Amino acid sequence: MRALTVTPGTPDSAALRDVPEPPPDDGPVLVETLGIGICGTDREIVSGAYGQAPDGAEHLVIGHESLGRVREAPEGSGLAEGDLVVGIVRRPDPVPCANCAVGEWDMCRNGRYTERGIQGRHGYASERYRIHPEYAVRIDPELDRVGVLMEPTTVVAKAWEHIERIGQRAAWSPRKVLVTGAGPIGLLAALLGVQRGLDVRVLDRVESGPKPDLVRQLGASYHTELSEVDDDADIVIEGTGAAPLIADVMAHNAHNAVVCLTGVSAKGRDLPVDVGGLNRGIVLQNDVVFGSVNANRRHYEKAADALAKADRGWLERLITRSVPLDDFAAALERRDDDVKVVLELGRDVDGASQGPRARRSEAEAE
Amino acid sequence: MRALTVTPGTPDSAALRDVPEPPPDDGPVLVETLGIGICGTDREIVSGAYGQAPDGAEHLVIGHESLGRVREAPEGSGLAEGDLVVGIVRRPDPVPCANCAVGEWDMCRNGRYTERGIQGRHGYASERYRIHPEYAVRIDPELDRVGVLMEPTTVVAKAWEHIERIGQRAAWSPRKVLVTGAGPIGLLAALLGVQRGLDVRVLDRVESGPKPDLVRQLGASYHTELSEVDDDADIVIEGTGAAPLIADVMAHNAHNAVVCLTGVSAKGRDLPVDVGGLNRGIVLQNDVVFGSVNANRRHYEKAADALAKADRGWLERLITRSVPLDDFAAALERRDDDVKVVLELGRDVDGASQGPRARRSEAEAE
Repeated sequence: MRALTVTPGTPDSAALRDVPEPPPDDGPVLVETLGIGICGTDREIVSGAYGQAPDGAEHLVIGHESLGRVREAPEGSGLAEGDLVVGIVRRPDPVPCANCAVGEWDMCRNGRYTERGIQGRHGYASERYRIHPEYAVRIDPELDRVGVLMEPTTVVAKAWEHIERIGQRAAWSPRKVLVTGAGPIGLLAALLGVQRGLDVRVLDRVESGPKPDLVRQLGASYHTELSEVDDDADIVIEGTGAAPLIADVMAHNAHNAVVCLTGVSAKGRDLPVDVGGLNRGIVLQNDVVFGSVNANRRHYEKAADALAKADRGWLERLITRSVPLDDFAAALERRDDDVKVVLELGRDVDGASQGPRARRSEAEAE
Repeated sequence: MRALTVTPGTPDSAALRDVPEPPPDDGPVLVETLGIGICGTDREIVSGAYGQAPDGAEHLVIGHESLGRVREAPEGSGLAEGDLVVGIVRRPDPVPCANCAVGEWDMCRNGRYTERGIQGRHGYASERYRIHPEYAVRIDPELDRVGVLMEPTTVVAKAWEHIERIGQRAAWSPRKVLVTGAGPIGLLAALLGVQRGLDVRVLDRVESGPKPDLVRQLGASYHTELSEVDDDADIVIEGTGAAPLIADVMAHNAHNAVVCLTGVSAKGRDLPVDVGGLNRGIVLQNDVVFGSVNANRRHYEKAADALAKADRGWLERLITRSVPLDDFAAALERRDDDVKVVLELGRDVDGASQGPRARRSEAEAE
C-alpha cells in the first residue's frame, strides 16, 4: 500500500513509498484512511528538524491528524465495520510512568512515550492502518469529512479542561477570552469558548483571507492589534508560539487570569523582557500561565462532543484545501489563506474513489 | 496610645505618634498588640514607594504581621478575653466583587480592597486595636510569641493550597520541591513542604548565618547554586523576587511542574530572555507558573494548624531579633543574618512588661 513517509533528520525527504500492509501487532482493528490533516509539526518533521522513525526503521510514515473508516473490528471492541474513527496520537511506554499508567499519557512524567507519525511509531498517512480499539475513537457519522479536525480539537479540549480545572483553584466566573492566532488551534479554541457562552476575542495579524470571517461567524470578535483588545481577559489561549506576543499576553489580562500556552515556538533567540515587572504582575494579580500539549482519550471524547454540536458549515470552511495523496507536495506547502489543509487518501467518506472529488476541492480553494 | 506610623509617599517618615484609642467602628473585639513582624512590604512603605493612608488621614499606622491578646470580646464572637489572636490583613470593599463576596478577598477581581497597615486602613502597630471577629483568628496559646509568624505562614498556606489544587488538574504525585530564598517566606514554605512528606531543597545565596542550619534542621537540603540542584522538582516556590532567578526556575523543573511565584519584585529593568525556548519548554512539559499573594480566612486557619504542629524551637529561631517599640528604627533596618525581626509592643505574652525581655532577646541575636 502507499504511504507518505520521511527520512527523519533529512530535510525535504517527504516521499510516497510502497510499504507493507499494517502488521497485526498494531492491533485487531483495520482502518481505511480517508484524510490526514497537515499541521506545523508535520512541516517541522518534513524540514528534518523533528521526528523519529520506529526502532530499526529508516523511514517514518507521517500523519497524526487522521480520519478513517473501520474495515474490520473484533466483537467486543466497541467498534464496527463502517464506523468513522480517529486514531489517538500518543502511546505510553510499555513500562508506563505514574501518569501514563492511569491513561494520562498527555501528562507523561518521563518523556518515554511514542507518537504515531511523529516519534518512534508510524503515523496514519498510509492507505490502511491497524490499531488497538482503546486508541481509536468513534465520531458522529454526520461529521463526515470534517472529522479530520478531531485531533487539533483534542488539543484545545485538553487546554480548556485544564483552564477550567486550574481556574477553579478559587471562586471562578470567567467571562472574557482572548485567543491569539486564528489558525486551526486558535479557531477551534475560540469555538470551544463560544460553546461555553464566553465573550471571545481572536487576535491574528492577517487582515484578509478567510480568518476574519471565520471568527465573526462564530460570534467572536476579530482584532489585528493587541492594543485594540481590552486587558480584561479572564482566559488567554496563546496559539501562535510567537515569542514577543507571548511575553505581551502574559501581562495583558484580568486579575486571576489563566493564560494557556499551546504554541510550540523556536528556541535560541533572546528578547529583552522586564522579568521583574512580569513577575510582580503575575504575583499581585494571582495570574496563572501554563502549557498544554497533546491529549488523552478523555479529551478525544470531549472533542468529539464539541465537534458534533458545532455548525457543520463552519467546520467545513476551516478546511481550505483538500489535496489528493499524489499531490502531497502541494499539501505540505504553506500558502496564504490556508487554515487547514487535508491530504485525501483511499476512498472518500461516501465510499467512492476520492481522486476527482479531492482535485475539484483543491481547484475550488484556489 | 502609641503607634508606629508613616506618611505614605514620604521617604523615611516612620515615627512613633500618639494616636486616638481605636474607634468602635473598627469592631467590637479589643486586642492588645504584643508583637509585629517586619517584612519587605513594611520597608517598601517606609521608603515611600508603597502604602496609602485611610481616606482623610495624613498618616498610616503600619504593621500587618500581628500577634495580640484579646482584652474585650462580645459573647457569641467565638473569642474570649485572653485569647491569642492574629488579625487578617485584607478587607473587601463595601461593595464586594464576586470573589470578595464569597470570602476570597485574596483573589479580589477589581483591586478595590483595603489592607491593614498597607493600603487605606490602619495597621496593627499600635498598643491596642479593634476588629470584627470574622477578621481575628485565634491561635494555639502554646504558640506564644511565635504566633507572630502566622501572617507570613498564611501566605505560604495559600500558595500550597493553590499548588495542590492546580497540580490536581491531572494525575499528581509530587515528590520533590525547590524553594528559592531562605527568608521567612522560603523557610515557612519549606516547613509546609516537609510537613507534607516531600523532599525539599532550599536555595539561597548566603553561605553563613542562621539560614543553612534552619533549613537542615527541617530535614531539607540547603544549596547556594541552582546548578547544584537537579532539575526534577515537581513544585517550585519562588520567594526571592530576583528577576534572573525567576527566569531560570521557570525552566529548571520536572515535567508537569507547578512553579509558584510569591516574591514581589521591582519592575522596569529588561533582561535578555529566550522567550521562545521558555514557552516551548512550558508547553512540551505541561508546566504551570502562577502567582500567589495575600490570604483569606481559610488560609489563616490552615496556617494556624501548620504552626501548631511545627517544632516550637525551630519557629523560635526564625525570630532572629526582637526589638522594643521605642527602637523601631533598629527593627526597620535590614541586617545580615536577619530572618524575621519582631517589634515588641505592650506587655509580653506572660502579661509582664516586655521591655527588658525584648532587649535581652535582641542582645542575644547579635
